[in-house]
Amino acid sequence: MKLVRYGQPGAERAGAIDTHGVLRDLSMLLGDIGPAQLAPRTLAALAALDLSRLPAVEGQPRLGCPVAGVGKIVCVGLNYVDHAREAGMQPPAEPVLFLKAVTALSGPNDDVRIPPGALKTDWEVELGIVVGTRMRHVAEPDALAHVAGYVLANDVSERAYQTERGGQWDKGKGCDTFAPIGPWLATADEVADPHAIDLWLEVNGRRVQNGSTRDFIFGVPTVLSYISQFMTLEPGDIVLTGTPAGVGLGQKPAPWFLKPGDVMRLGATGLGEQRQVCTGG
Amino acid sequence: MKLVRYGQPGAERAGAIDTHGVLRDLSMLLGDIGPAQLAPRTLAALAALDLSRLPAVEGQPRLGCPVAGVGKIVCVGLNYVDHAREAGMQPPAEPVLFLKAVTALSGPNDDVRIPPGALKTDWEVELGIVVGTRMRHVAEPDALAHVAGYVLANDVSERAYQTERGGQWDKGKGCDTFAPIGPWLATADEVADPHAIDLWLEVNGRRVQNGSTRDFIFGVPTVLSYISQFMTLEPGDIVLTGTPAGVGLGQKPAPWFLKPGDVMRLGATGLGEQRQVCTGG
Repeated sequence: MKLVRYGQPGAERAGAIDTHGVLRDLSMLLGDIGPAQLAPRTLAALAALDLSRLPAVEGQPRLGCPVAGVGKIVCVGLNYVDHAREAGMQPPAEPVLFLKAVTALSGPNDDVRIPPGALKTDWEVELGIVVGTRMRHVAEPDALAHVAGYVLANDVSERAYQTERGGQWDKGKGCDTFAPIGPWLATADEVADPHAIDLWLEVNGRRVQNGSTRDFIFGVPTVLSYISQFMTLEPGDIVLTGTPAGVGLGQKPAPWFLKPGDVMRLGATGLGEQRQVCTGG
Repeated sequence: MKLVRYGQPGAERAGAIDTHGVLRDLSMLLGDIGPAQLAPRTLAALAALDLSRLPAVEGQPRLGCPVAGVGKIVCVGLNYVDHAREAGMQPPAEPVLFLKAVTALSGPNDDVRIPPGALKTDWEVELGIVVGTRMRHVAEPDALAHVAGYVLANDVSERAYQTERGGQWDKGKGCDTFAPIGPWLATADEVADPHAIDLWLEVNGRRVQNGSTRDFIFGVPTVLSYISQFMTLEPGDIVLTGTPAGVGLGQKPAPWFLKPGDVMRLGATGLGEQRQVCTGG
């Protein structure tokens, strides 16, 4: 099922996209789509719904992040060899982890606000994993059973804040609006193989990223198991799995970055598309 | 007022410590102590209570983190010259920021779990700031007005995870139980000067940290204003302000670290004391 949250920021309602692309209301069943609703038995019950018998939502409402109550966003850095190379880094021997502030979350088509004075705001199309059940010291073979589903994500990053302002990446990763998620949460049963997802991103119509999760250095079970050795993953937590080559930092002959008015479009197999207009902070 | 949350993990109730050190129940007024209750008008109303007329709580209940619904924990690194020096780092030109996973939060006297196989688990006594009202691009002179209060914190850190496992500090900062907070939230009116707080920490009765927030490189208004340029701070967010010298990493003639059975005690002027027993993961 493709679960969405639609409506104005802070007032989103639960919905689902049916096989014809029609948005159906689920708010009579679900108070929201958050940690409680990501439980396997709830998702299994939703899968039994004939969506065509639920009310279609009129118009083209805004979509929010398809998961509410996200406790943390754990990100994997440098998880594609080609991106590590363009960033001037060695492919890591074990996953590089960092956190993204939850206040960065926004809807898939909301504006991305470039912070005042920022000159190196960059894009990163990524596969996101939504945790369905608690994971603590989980072994790799057991990891996928804890996944509620997958999302498309843009891990927007201010490179100067990330690497030129004192040591840790988090400063450039967690700015408000730097985590557009969605349009939908594809439940795990909808995704035949999370390691066969094509990812792309365009800036002002120019294709800059073209990748596939086939090229992960560390696959989904490895990443989840690894993180769960360091911290408990809770239902509703989001794991971002890294970006392939083609970010602004890696452009030839010279890096280029986002400015107000630029438009990003990005997509992933089975996970839909996003579109963001960049604005001043 | 000294606000606490008492009871078993996940079932804490609101309370307050009166001037005689007696725990008084506040659960008939407050559903919890979280973002909604940190609003200035709620705190002002609580300050009008005669706590001696509220029911005393029997026994010695466990205390939880005194703030529920923490959205994020933003930490300042290397904010004391002497600690920067012992860590072999230059004092930073601007605040170093990182995030601590909210799943690391625990009560002030809960066990600290050393992760399996970890050999460099370390202590860091710190002043914590609890945000009361939303902060976005706030100027320094306006910053203190957004503070709900202050807490004692132990920014427990696994140094090998932090610096020897691939790039970013977050991996060694966010392990479960690595953020004991409390015993109480001292509301801002209780803290005459957040830059005159003595901090100390003992391991197995041996005093290892003795510091004062007088020695901050970046004071509370600077830190809050600075963070708010990078990300919005929401009510209930916690800012940890860095630790003075004396961590395990800085011990002479050689570093030493925590092992199961070790006991940490720490305290801060006006913010109470914590005691943690270290256990295996």
